Amino acid sequence: MPLYRRLAEHYQGAIQAGTLVAGDRMPSVRDLMRQHQVSLSTALQTLRHMEEGGWLEARPRSGYFVRQPRRSAIRPVQEPKSLIAIDPAQYVGIHEKVSKYIAQRQASAPAIDLSGMTCAPELYAVDTLKQAAMRALRDRPELLTSAMPHNGNHTFRQAVARRALNAGMRIDADEVVVTHGCIEALNLALRAVAGPGDTIAVESPTYFGLLQALENLGMKALEIPTSPHTGISSEALELAVRTYGNIKAVVVVPNLQNPLGCIMPDASKDKLVRLCEELRLPLIEDDAYTELADGNAPPSSLKSRDRSGNVIYCASLNKVLAPGMRLGWMNGGRWHERVKMLKFTHTRANEEWTQVTAADFIASPGYDRHLRRLRQLLKEQRERMAESIAAYFPEGTRLNVPNGGVGMWVELPAQICSQQLFELALAEGVGVSPGAIFSNSNRYGHFLRICCGHPFTRELDQALRQLGRIGHMLAAG
Amino acid sequence: MPLYRRLAEHYQGAIQAGTLVAGDRMPSVRDLMRQHQVSLSTALQTLRHMEEGGWLEARPRSGYFVRQPRRSAIRPVQEPKSLIAIDPAQYVGIHEKVSKYIAQRQASAPAIDLSGMTCAPELYAVDTLKQAAMRALRDRPELLTSAMPHNGNHTFRQAVARRALNAGMRIDADEVVVTHGCIEALNLALRAVAGPGDTIAVESPTYFGLLQALENLGMKALEIPTSPHTGISSEALELAVRTYGNIKAVVVVPNLQNPLGCIMPDASKDKLVRLCEELRLPLIEDDAYTELADGNAPPSSLKSRDRSGNVIYCASLNKVLAPGMRLGWMNGGRWHERVKMLKFTHTRANEEWTQVTAADFIASPGYDRHLRRLRQLLKEQRERMAESIAAYFPEGTRLNVPNGGVGMWVELPAQICSQQLFELALAEGVGVSPGAIFSNSNRYGHFLRICCGHPFTRELDQALRQLGRIGHMLAAG
Repeated sequence: MPLYRRLAEHYQGAIQAGTLVAGDRMPSVRDLMRQHQVSLSTALQTLRHMEEGGWLEARPRSGYFVRQPRRSAIRPVQEPKSLIAIDPAQYVGIHEKVSKYIAQRQASAPAIDLSGMTCAPELYAVDTLKQAAMRALRDRPELLTSAMPHNGNHTFRQAVARRALNAGMRIDADEVVVTHGCIEALNLALRAVAGPGDTIAVESPTYFGLLQALENLGMKALEIPTSPHTGISSEALELAVRTYGNIKAVVVVPNLQNPLGCIMPDASKDKLVRLCEELRLPLIEDDAYTELADGNAPPSSLKSRDRSGNVIYCASLNKVLAPGMRLGWMNGGRWHERVKMLKFTHTRANEEWTQVTAADFIASPGYDRHLRRLRQLLKEQRERMAESIAAYFPEGTRLNVPNGGVGMWVELPAQICSQQLFELALAEGVGVSPGAIFSNSNRYGHFLRICCGHPFTRELDQALRQLGRIGHMLAAG
Repeated sequence: MPLYRRLAEHYQGAIQAGTLVAGDRMPSVRDLMRQHQVSLSTALQTLRHMEEGGWLEARPRSGYFVRQPRRSAIRPVQEPKSLIAIDPAQYVGIHEKVSKYIAQRQASAPAIDLSGMTCAPELYAVDTLKQAAMRALRDRPELLTSAMPHNGNHTFRQAVARRALNAGMRIDADEVVVTHGCIEALNLALRAVAGPGDTIAVESPTYFGLLQALENLGMKALEIPTSPHTGISSEALELAVRTYGNIKAVVVVPNLQNPLGCIMPDASKDKLVRLCEELRLPLIEDDAYTELADGNAPPSSLKSRDRSGNVIYCASLNKVLAPGMRLGWMNGGRWHERVKMLKFTHTRANEEWTQVTAADFIASPGYDRHLRRLRQLLKEQRERMAESIAAYFPEGTRLNVPNGGVGMWVELPAQICSQQLFELALAEGVGVSPGAIFSNSNRYGHFLRICCGHPFTRELDQALRQLGRIGHMLAAG
């Protein structure tokens, strides 16, 4: 990172921590040069970079001042109004809605696509991965033509098991099953503990891919009230289990929930894991984003609290390592043997070549460097986008700016139909995800999920301005 | 192919066609030199190669004579005794049986493993594939870090669509869904047309992977009597549909059926496709082996006869291109939209890098050269193994030597329990597949499936001798 950016970081951190507040005068160019022993050009670049990022404003003949972040005027998304889960009898099928959404998005191929949860390719270590891949091909070309070991390549399983160990999870390499992304892991986890006709508790809102998978497996999703700040409510879950019976499992994204972006506090995680143990309710943990949390101490997992094998842990390297490699892995807890068998009958083993390439990178010091850089870039992009949303979106918009990850959950004024906004934006070449696909109980019709995985550019800013304009138009009715 | 082998081929073909028969005198070294304009050493090598292959025997001072193939004394596997499908009420669960079999095989890791249906890595074009993979990495490294297009990489889909076209199937590139091997395609096909509790007609015997997949999907397999020479009986299928109702689909391997190795005659294929159309019974075609049929005109598919979208076509490149790449593809016929959606919710899209590598090779002239070589090697291995089986196995053994593919189906004398043989052989370091796992109606207890995907070596011959010895022991009781 160049010197001016490191210096900008230093002051931005102080603003975020509240050491410097809106209206405070920034050190002058001369001060910066003296205090930090930097050149005139570095000092100037630092101030301009912070101004461009919306952190400072220049006042003629007075210097730079810390700016009131526009998004400080924007309120957070509201808490759920009740702890009572909606009666599944009121549910609508999600398939058609999601299929229509995906088809529309694919057909339009928007120029600026903020609908997914994937980061731009340039955020990943493409050269390092390419070198690792070349090495794998040179050293072990026979991987291309040999039958694969069941459950995954040993070196890869060892590499992820070691990282899990550092995150407080004791999962040995031979207790890891490698999967095609997290979605296969979730499918296997669900099939391991439940069957057609069974009900599965999920967060509300939740990832549409999970709702779709459930519907395809003939299972019913019961949406549990979930705080946009502290995650799924254990009280609401307990109430639902006592009300509805026949709930066979609960699926939870404890860290950087999709779409909410929230991280459950440790106490809530403890409570949830203990509750599920007491109820003998299998707890399926979906972990795709933890390593993208801000800072260098990722939040803890539910699995690290598991004493009885009641937690099925499903992880993805898709967002973290590389979206083009589609690697996931899982540990089935006390259903692990059944998970292994289901994986075998489902897709057999994963290709070894990809795993060897990934293991090479994951076991190297470069991997943590990559993660630090990725987190930092995502944070910058997120902050910049939040500022633009605050500036352009209609009065009454609420926003959660999460402490990590790839998405933001935006609550629009209640009269705005986000499906309409989605369609109008698509016609202008901008893709977003409408809130309604994150629930099958007709909720979240005025919410949007916006991806912040792309570098903040003038075009991206322009796209957010367009979204804001459409929002204003729809708000006016 | 060296000259002596081409010359040997020439004469072996004549023996197979019956132009030369057992006891005929082969041309002498001098004759060969004159007639074919070859050197002394080539003529000698030709005769020695044919002798080693079991085609000729040397008689002192008289020259070489066409040998009575030992396997001509061995009779083919018997036809099913009845056209009536066994009542599914008599079925046993297959899971436990198959899981136990897989676990035993894995735990023993036999030195000579003839249990799978995978060819030895050296039978594939590892260098060509490695070069193609390197090229893909150099030209398009961003494939590693980019989100993938739904349903597969376009170039790959085009490459397989073109080959399908040459095989008489009109499937456009955008009607191809790329899958993780054929097993995922089968899972998707089954889920597209049927649900838990439904009955699916299958061949008897059939691939244990299919039985396992069905059981995991909560579906029931109805085993239809199948000729070891002409494949599934349309009469038996029709009878079963009229008897049982609630049959939602039929899964058929028309070419080089697993485990029988038979190829359905064209007339039987016509009849089956028309019958399923009449009955509105979805016909799922499992095509993993067609390109491994002897000769250079692969047998035709069921899909090429499909006029109404009633055939779901599932293909694998696993045995043909490379076992380490796990590529399959499918076309869902009139259920194609549903197949696409199920694939998305199941495992999302396949990695592009593997597909780009495969497409590079498949579209090159080297691919057909590779296939010709692979077919030829498999044929040689199969013939040599059949000779050894004929020599070593107990009296009363029956054998189908198929016209292509990777497996052989061996019928042992009825008093031999092949599960016992499997276990005893495993203890001696030899793996085979016991017949009982190819049915969930307690049939085929005295059958074996033996893989002929490995180069014929002294060790392999020795392993077959061991199997024969154990067979003799069990036959004696």
